[in-house]
Amino acid sequence: MSDIYENVMELARRRGFIWPTAECYGSVAGFIDYGPLGAMMKRRIENLWRDFYVIREGYYEIEAPTIGIEPVFVASGHVKGFSDKMCECPHCGEYLRADHTVASGGEDCPAGASCEEIAKVLERIPCPSCGTKLGPLVVSEFNLMFQTTIGPGSLRKGYLRPETAQGMFTDFGRLLRFYRDKLPFGAVQIGKSYRNEISPRQGMIRLREFTQAEAEIFVHPKKKNHPQFCRYAAYEAPLLTAALQEKSMGSSPLSMGDAVRSGIISNEYVAYYLALTHDILVKVGIRPDRIRFRQHLSDERAHYATDCWDAEFFSDRFGWVELVGIADRTDYDLKAHASHSGLSLTVFLPYDTPRTEQKRRVIPRMDVLGPRFRKQAKEVAAAMETTTPTEEGITLTLNGEQVRIPSDLYEVREETVEIRGEEVTPHVIEPSYGIDRIIYAVLEHCYAEELVEGEVRKVLRLPPWIAPIQVAVFPLMPRDGLDNLAREIADSLAGSGLLVEYDENGAIGRRYRRQDEIGTPYAITVDYETKETNTVTIRDRDSMQQVRVPVLGLEEAVRSLVAGDTALEFLKT
Amino acid sequence: MSDIYENVMELARRRGFIWPTAECYGSVAGFIDYGPLGAMMKRRIENLWRDFYVIREGYYEIEAPTIGIEPVFVASGHVKGFSDKMCECPHCGEYLRADHTVASGGEDCPAGASCEEIAKVLERIPCPSCGTKLGPLVVSEFNLMFQTTIGPGSLRKGYLRPETAQGMFTDFGRLLRFYRDKLPFGAVQIGKSYRNEISPRQGMIRLREFTQAEAEIFVHPKKKNHPQFCRYAAYEAPLLTAALQEKSMGSSPLSMGDAVRSGIISNEYVAYYLALTHDILVKVGIRPDRIRFRQHLSDERAHYATDCWDAEFFSDRFGWVELVGIADRTDYDLKAHASHSGLSLTVFLPYDTPRTEQKRRVIPRMDVLGPRFRKQAKEVAAAMETTTPTEEGITLTLNGEQVRIPSDLYEVREETVEIRGEEVTPHVIEPSYGIDRIIYAVLEHCYAEELVEGEVRKVLRLPPWIAPIQVAVFPLMPRDGLDNLAREIADSLAGSGLLVEYDENGAIGRRYRRQDEIGTPYAITVDYETKETNTVTIRDRDSMQQVRVPVLGLEEAVRSLVAGDTALEFLKT
Repeated sequence: MSDIYENVMELARRRGFIWPTAECYGSVAGFIDYGPLGAMMKRRIENLWRDFYVIREGYYEIEAPTIGIEPVFVASGHVKGFSDKMCECPHCGEYLRADHTVASGGEDCPAGASCEEIAKVLERIPCPSCGTKLGPLVVSEFNLMFQTTIGPGSLRKGYLRPETAQGMFTDFGRLLRFYRDKLPFGAVQIGKSYRNEISPRQGMIRLREFTQAEAEIFVHPKKKNHPQFCRYAAYEAPLLTAALQEKSMGSSPLSMGDAVRSGIISNEYVAYYLALTHDILVKVGIRPDRIRFRQHLSDERAHYATDCWDAEFFSDRFGWVELVGIADRTDYDLKAHASHSGLSLTVFLPYDTPRTEQKRRVIPRMDVLGPRFRKQAKEVAAAMETTTPTEEGITLTLNGEQVRIPSDLYEVREETVEIRGEEVTPHVIEPSYGIDRIIYAVLEHCYAEELVEGEVRKVLRLPPWIAPIQVAVFPLMPRDGLDNLAREIADSLAGSGLLVEYDENGAIGRRYRRQDEIGTPYAITVDYETKETNTVTIRDRDSMQQVRVPVLGLEEAVRSLVAGDTALEFLKT
Repeated sequence: MSDIYENVMELARRRGFIWPTAECYGSVAGFIDYGPLGAMMKRRIENLWRDFYVIREGYYEIEAPTIGIEPVFVASGHVKGFSDKMCECPHCGEYLRADHTVASGGEDCPAGASCEEIAKVLERIPCPSCGTKLGPLVVSEFNLMFQTTIGPGSLRKGYLRPETAQGMFTDFGRLLRFYRDKLPFGAVQIGKSYRNEISPRQGMIRLREFTQAEAEIFVHPKKKNHPQFCRYAAYEAPLLTAALQEKSMGSSPLSMGDAVRSGIISNEYVAYYLALTHDILVKVGIRPDRIRFRQHLSDERAHYATDCWDAEFFSDRFGWVELVGIADRTDYDLKAHASHSGLSLTVFLPYDTPRTEQKRRVIPRMDVLGPRFRKQAKEVAAAMETTTPTEEGITLTLNGEQVRIPSDLYEVREETVEIRGEEVTPHVIEPSYGIDRIIYAVLEHCYAEELVEGEVRKVLRLPPWIAPIQVAVFPLMPRDGLDNLAREIADSLAGSGLLVEYDENGAIGRRYRRQDEIGTPYAITVDYETKETNTVTIRDRDSMQQVRVPVLGLEEAVRSLVAGDTALEFLKT
């Protein structure tokens, strides 16, 4: 087999899954178009994601704009810190991403190396574009946000969001009220995000505009037990822990319950979404033996995250590639937005039974304070109320001067105060999915070439619920009324919400192959027997087996097949 | 009733439909967030649109990026022509959109007025922001595309797309092959588009980032008969023709068949999508008595369109507002992209039977041309082949000089040429929907306040298939096992794919009101009778009538109600 990426992308282009953007103008790296079949498959994957997160978990979807104003990304840290190190080749002028160039040059650089240190390493490496040894050059930081201007003038900066997450954080107050001021709750977004990559060279793996599906789940900082953890406690997933990486070992399967109990995964929420992610990735068609969950090493972890795992798939072309990040972002984001916006982004959590505390209160005696401090008396009294008196009285700083207040100027009363609850800044658990990479992973893992009767058969073994076309309908011959019968069947299947393709062109074998290539799981053929016995054949894409079934009940049968509720052999008449 | 817009938006904000974007940083005009209920309603409207265009019409959806490269928008005319006239108030510095300021100042400007002419009119008008008479100022064109830079350096300009349409045009060649080189075919997109408005002041009506749903239907220029026109031939819609507008008259209902026959609508395709649009707008909940289709006057029509209609709704706050544009864009876009990209964007349409033509072919006699023209002989021969000889021979222009070629230097042969078909540039029919405005229109038209038992009841009369929450389930009291029963029912309804809200907090009357406000069409109550007779009540939001129905078959009953397949009174036991 020649390069798998080329084969997959050739099929994807030719059959309408993925097209180069603005191809007639030479296109540009980092952008792709989803053609008719690709867009349909993408929507099916997004809807499957919604089944898990919106319907089952109960986290509502919101939709914030893709353009954000500057203060949001100042608070989030993106204006300052969302950048890659870059240099320009002094010979050909090509912009190069420094770390990638170091790696592809076979050199090594420590994770926290400075621009100057990296420049020193780069000197020895030939430019990947023109081949000349780079020599002395300058490495600088390049911010990866696309920048624009909102309205006329150039005063109001806007940025294309680098992640959908910030929209959930800035809506936190509104969301909290929507969920009636209780924890935990969550919100999700599926939408475009943007990274102005310096020099993207990996097709669908490194896009400048891509689709994310992110959930932000707001939980009590001290209660990180997922209420439905039992669902995944026994679920096993291949974990590549930080410890295993340090020993250069491979991943090892572990149940979520054991991983949490042994402290490998920091809490039930992270473990729960790790298992749920595994569940989703397998369901959309990624090979289970090529998935692993890699824990971030302490030096690569984002400064805010306490624990972070990447779901990765193995690509024959690209090696291990990240698809999903699952992180405990702690209270970093809410605290950052609270401090930048000046608003309180907390939840008031009432105690089951209000607590009482004994408090000593200072009560200034205004009758004596008034004559003594005159105009300043009120100020002094207010300051006194916030102090804890000692036996010597109270010491205040007033206009830079220390003032001693003797105990005859106030009373001290013991009071019982009722404390009804506490203000808590929730922690955020974030599973973040890169939809485009998932689509590529599915295409690569489902793509197969096999020799059938001396010819190469290309087949996409997509799960039926992900396949863009769900069923094809053919007349054996486009005549003798077979075509009309087949059209009627196609229409009735379409009427029940299935995506059907009717095809009468060419030999029946070629029509099967056309559908195999685009992953259509089932093909129905109307033949001469149909007119006599009112039955048709259904062919299974993978086994190429055909089963004859009655036309009566066909709709129900096909829907069960596509939903994965039954298998073809059970439909035999 | 106070201002309807304020009332609707207050409810929309409070209950989680529409939120100000980045509210904690003061937000910015022209952007909104869809909260949990708004995003759900938006998705339902988009999916209903897909039912019409993707499933019924059979036009596949594609997904192109929102960032486009410059050549695309040079060809489309947006770089040069997509602008509004603008001025800056010399007193307060506010940027003003010139035409809006003229209109709000009660003045009038002809449609094609120049910047200088408009400046003259503006001089007399007070600034809408600071109130000072504007006086002498400069009016200039402001391009409405958001601009950015792709990659490092500032050489490669990118624009946020002002419409989704261009993605379908630049994919034309790929789409044509996907549809196997036949006309008509269509493609659709639902996605974000952007206009960097100068000074947006109308909330959801004038957004800088908005969602469009557009279909581009490629048809034979001489065959603009929609194959399914019979479906809408008798369908009546209120048309405000150009002629009626010139007489300052109102719209008048007309069937699509009559409108095409009488030449009021230019062809069946435009009429078909006009009727289909009316069908959709009524189905999502816009009042039929507040919809009209306004034909563009010849001076307002885009230069490329031969016929253009706006679907408008009447708003109590904003007057008549455009929701949908339906245009025959002719071959303008494809020809523009063909000429800018240098590619041929045509369809080869074979004739049913190939035509034959007699052609005279000039065959140069190289044996005599060679000695005579030496090095130039080949060039001369090639030029001769493209000419039609007269009796005097052939006249060529060679290096600026006229050369006479006598008839003994060539032969003329009569040949029969088979012409198998013709290259045709398709015309484009485009229905273009503004989803956000449609959502506002639905909210405004479905919003009602009524006096019920001495209290104001706010209710959103959303069609059940658009309502975010489809059914609410309440226990009459949260005790005596009623809560468990109600939860079970809620779970089983949710399991069948309905969006259900369970609520046990507060008096039952208040719970009904909460659901009325968000448009939930049905509320199921579990009461003490449920335990005895295994029945529940279903309450209808609009009539507030309750009907008792058996728990057995409840799922099916609610799904029929929500789909609009049955009415509550037919469910009575």
